Amino acid sequence: MTTATSSAGRGRVLSVTVWNEGRHEQRDAPVRALYPDGIHGAIAAGITENLGDAVRVRTAQLDEPEHGLTEDVLADTDVLTWWGHQAHGEVSDEVVDRVHRHVLSGMGLVVLHSGHWSSIFRRLLGTTCTLNWRSEHDRELVWTVDPAHPVAQGVPNPIVIPRQEMYGEFFDIPTPDELVFVSGFSGGEVFRSGCGFHRGHGRIFYFSPGDQDFPVYHQKEIRRVISNAVQHVAPVGERVLPSLHHRDLDWFLTPAPTQP
Amino acid sequence: MTTATSSAGRGRVLSVTVWNEGRHEQRDAPVRALYPDGIHGAIAAGITENLGDAVRVRTAQLDEPEHGLTEDVLADTDVLTWWGHQAHGEVSDEVVDRVHRHVLSGMGLVVLHSGHWSSIFRRLLGTTCTLNWRSEHDRELVWTVDPAHPVAQGVPNPIVIPRQEMYGEFFDIPTPDELVFVSGFSGGEVFRSGCGFHRGHGRIFYFSPGDQDFPVYHQKEIRRVISNAVQHVAPVGERVLPSLHHRDLDWFLTPAPTQP
Amino acid sequence: MTTATSSAGRGRVLSVTVWNEGRHEQRDAPVRALYPDGIHGAIAAGITENLGDAVRVRTAQLDEPEHGLTEDVLADTDVLTWWGHQAHGEVSDEVVDRVHRHVLSGMGLVVLHSGHWSSIFRRLLGTTCTLNWRSEHDRELVWTVDPAHPVAQGVPNPIVIPRQEMYGEFFDIPTPDELVFVSGFSGGEVFRSGCGFHRGHGRIFYFSPGDQDFPVYHQKEIRRVISNAVQHVAPVGERVLPSLHHRDLDWFLTPAPTQP
Amino acid sequence: MTTATSSAGRGRVLSVTVWNEGRHEQRDAPVRALYPDGIHGAIAAGITENLGDAVRVRTAQLDEPEHGLTEDVLADTDVLTWWGHQAHGEVSDEVVDRVHRHVLSGMGLVVLHSGHWSSIFRRLLGTTCTLNWRSEHDRELVWTVDPAHPVAQGVPNPIVIPRQEMYGEFFDIPTPDELVFVSGFSGGEVFRSGCGFHRGHGRIFYFSPGDQDFPVYHQKEIRRVISNAVQHVAPVGERVLPSLHHRDLDWFLTPAPTQP
Repeated sequence: MTTATSSAGRGRVLSVTVWNEGRHEQRDAPVRALYPDGIHGAIAAGITENLGDAVRVRTAQLDEPEHGLTEDVLADTDVLTWWGHQAHGEVSDEVVDRVHRHVLSGMGLVVLHSGHWSSIFRRLLGTTCTLNWRSEHDRELVWTVDPAHPVAQGVPNPIVIPRQEMYGEFFDIPTPDELVFVSGFSGGEVFRSGCGFHRGHGRIFYFSPGDQDFPVYHQKEIRRVISNAVQHVAPVGERVLPSLHHRDLDWFLTPAPTQP
Repeated sequence: MTTATSSAGRGRVLSVTVWNEGRHEQRDAPVRALYPDGIHGAIAAGITENLGDAVRVRTAQLDEPEHGLTEDVLADTDVLTWWGHQAHGEVSDEVVDRVHRHVLSGMGLVVLHSGHWSSIFRRLLGTTCTLNWRSEHDRELVWTVDPAHPVAQGVPNPIVIPRQEMYGEFFDIPTPDELVFVSGFSGGEVFRSGCGFHRGHGRIFYFSPGDQDFPVYHQKEIRRVISNAVQHVAPVGERVLPSLHHRDLDWFLTPAPTQP
Repeated sequence: MTTATSSAGRGRVLSVTVWNEGRHEQRDAPVRALYPDGIHGAIAAGITENLGDAVRVRTAQLDEPEHGLTEDVLADTDVLTWWGHQAHGEVSDEVVDRVHRHVLSGMGLVVLHSGHWSSIFRRLLGTTCTLNWRSEHDRELVWTVDPAHPVAQGVPNPIVIPRQEMYGEFFDIPTPDELVFVSGFSGGEVFRSGCGFHRGHGRIFYFSPGDQDFPVYHQKEIRRVISNAVQHVAPVGERVLPSLHHRDLDWFLTPAPTQP
Repeated sequence: MTTATSSAGRGRVLSVTVWNEGRHEQRDAPVRALYPDGIHGAIAAGITENLGDAVRVRTAQLDEPEHGLTEDVLADTDVLTWWGHQAHGEVSDEVVDRVHRHVLSGMGLVVLHSGHWSSIFRRLLGTTCTLNWRSEHDRELVWTVDPAHPVAQGVPNPIVIPRQEMYGEFFDIPTPDELVFVSGFSGGEVFRSGCGFHRGHGRIFYFSPGDQDFPVYHQKEIRRVISNAVQHVAPVGERVLPSLHHRDLDWFLTPAPTQP
């Protein structure tokens, strides 16, 4: 008999790791001007601003050893947020495998904006995760299509983003387990911009607003959504990788230590 | 042991009943000008135009005895399409009960535009089916978010509707079993405009484009989508209402005539 | 612009109303012997046992005025649990309408066992909610098919119920938004026994174990699941009924008091 | 403007490729005795038996060059069925990549039994696809939980399989887009045994009954389900891989040749 024990109750301080590719900040002065503390810095600040003492936030970047995502860091991470854009191919297979294993074991993952094309997102979803795009100052309206969803709390419907890159359908993802936001752009396109996915024991939330060329991660409502998403994907059960089990007849009648 | 036998194979001629409230055509000259054969006439013509000999189409209206939806008519209908707007409350409870029973038994239902607030749609979905609206000549773009879906075949992505009433989120429906289209309006709103639902043995498709004040049902692409939807919700199994069954131990080991 | 404000944060004391038909306890001595405090008493005790100070629990029964479910009681109820069996038809339309409205406005609803055929469950789901059944001492195994789901925490997989009424497929419900448990019975049947549904702003959880003829509501694991479900369907946003809204062009650019 | 054109209408002869690992037949005399024409032979015979002139069936095996799955073969395949067990690791990455690309482009895939742990299934689903198992002559009952689904037509509910390997939950797959069958085993376990998934432009159906040690693929009802599944996942639209597209403002107002 297997017993799921909660190692991550809702009252506990969440350990959040904010991951950033960090290349635009090195190379592009306008991005540095928009995000003097890095995109990761802005995201981390937004989470702390909203969740305060309920979270412990650290950051990690591509150019650190093992991209800052060692086994120890991930084992101590309840929720990982992911921002990448131009260097998806530089994330090592080993680290992608490691993150994949931790998500399937229960670690929460929040994938942001151009992270839609990251190796880890495509590995978890199994599709190309491609879309239509245009970077020409569209206005984005983020509409809530599930107003009772925890991730949609505390923000207006719609959220108005004055200028933002356009992401449009067809977005090649599996049907989301939870569709929370759909965006409309002034150019006419629409996009499923807030999507929850369940994979293994892990919860994933994809939220598309946020680009290196616009100050989206300084916007109060966007920070609130990301913070809501962090809480939403936090693990509620034990951290364990699903695996094959041979089972004798009537195995479940003999109580045993946890065999998940 | 129950055996599902197919009484409605894919090769068979489909019997389609196009239902229309028919009040705007009586009262409003501009609507009569747009739809000289009635909204039902335009919808029926579009289905015949696309499906030809594969369908047998009749029409029925609110002001006929039993609204034209007698037990005999429904028993002989594979797919019913529904358009209503200002007289939802005049559809008798008895006819709503009858249509409800036939849908749960397997009859297909295509609900169009303002039919979102009809008694039959709300009865089947259980929610208020309310939404935001504005009738001021918005342009509607109908985007396909599931390009492999049968209902999306043969039309451009997006479909451009030059002028149309705006329907916007939050649309209070249960999460669709199949989300095929999402519309964007020039005013900025978005809407889940093409949704499939499964209820009992029946399939339902809701498609929002189409208004008495605009010539939408004369548009080729819209007619194609409605025709696709008719084929998609056509029953593939026998027509029978799910019901309670007391089952003796090992009942399934004794083959018996069909007991669905 | 509409703003969703959280009136029911996760840290708040939840107000729970446990509703029971209460007829078996009046008429059947064996049921009284199994449930000396009524089925409602056992369910309420199980919720208090698990959630303690986090909940305030009251009970209500069919034979009270307005079935104990006045407007005041429902307005003060975060989560309603429902047990009924032989008198579904005696619940007044007015009270069913009232509960329906409160659920669509955000009140949580936990439907138990034979409540599958209650008017309120059928009203919310739109289908017949029929199934196969047999009351002959089957053993029920309740298997978790979504181990990361909050409702499945803290219980073994499977939960073993030594004797229980059999409920088998086909269970005529819409596809659940969340499928958490599937039961297997010693007679061979299977059943989707733990299902979440989202309707309007409300969350619903159906959990099938529990019968007047068996001591299921005294079983520790069953009480834990019901308590988990109460927490899971508790509202996270404001309580408001979705409704039709006419929207002028650019309405969302003018901040306004909450217009949900 | 992109136009989806149907290259695979429902009336067309389907090209089906039945793939088999083929190792048990080489090594294990009892398997050869059960399946003298190979597992692929039995599956192919079942498809032809049910679909006759509507299909053109070929087979392919692991030990052929490129496992019999060259670019030419896949380009000419509407639906691929997959059976593997002990040599999943011997399927080359190149062929897995190729099949993955064809499925996302629209080729249908039917994965059978122990194919749940194949590289292609895990690549498409993103999870471990692990489960509980026991090979000790359990009886399997395959229950239909969606009786209106095309794959469930023409078979009894339940299908009785006298002896079969047990596959039990937790089955680590994403929530299926279509849940059609749930099995119960005489040992008490349950399993989501018939599941549809949509990935990219492709449809996938997983059906668990069928093992090298039991004559399941000679059973009439099992052959019918597999044949139904082949028809269900057949592509209805054009074959094209979703990809990134930069879109100029108003691109959709300029009709152009198909740009999917």
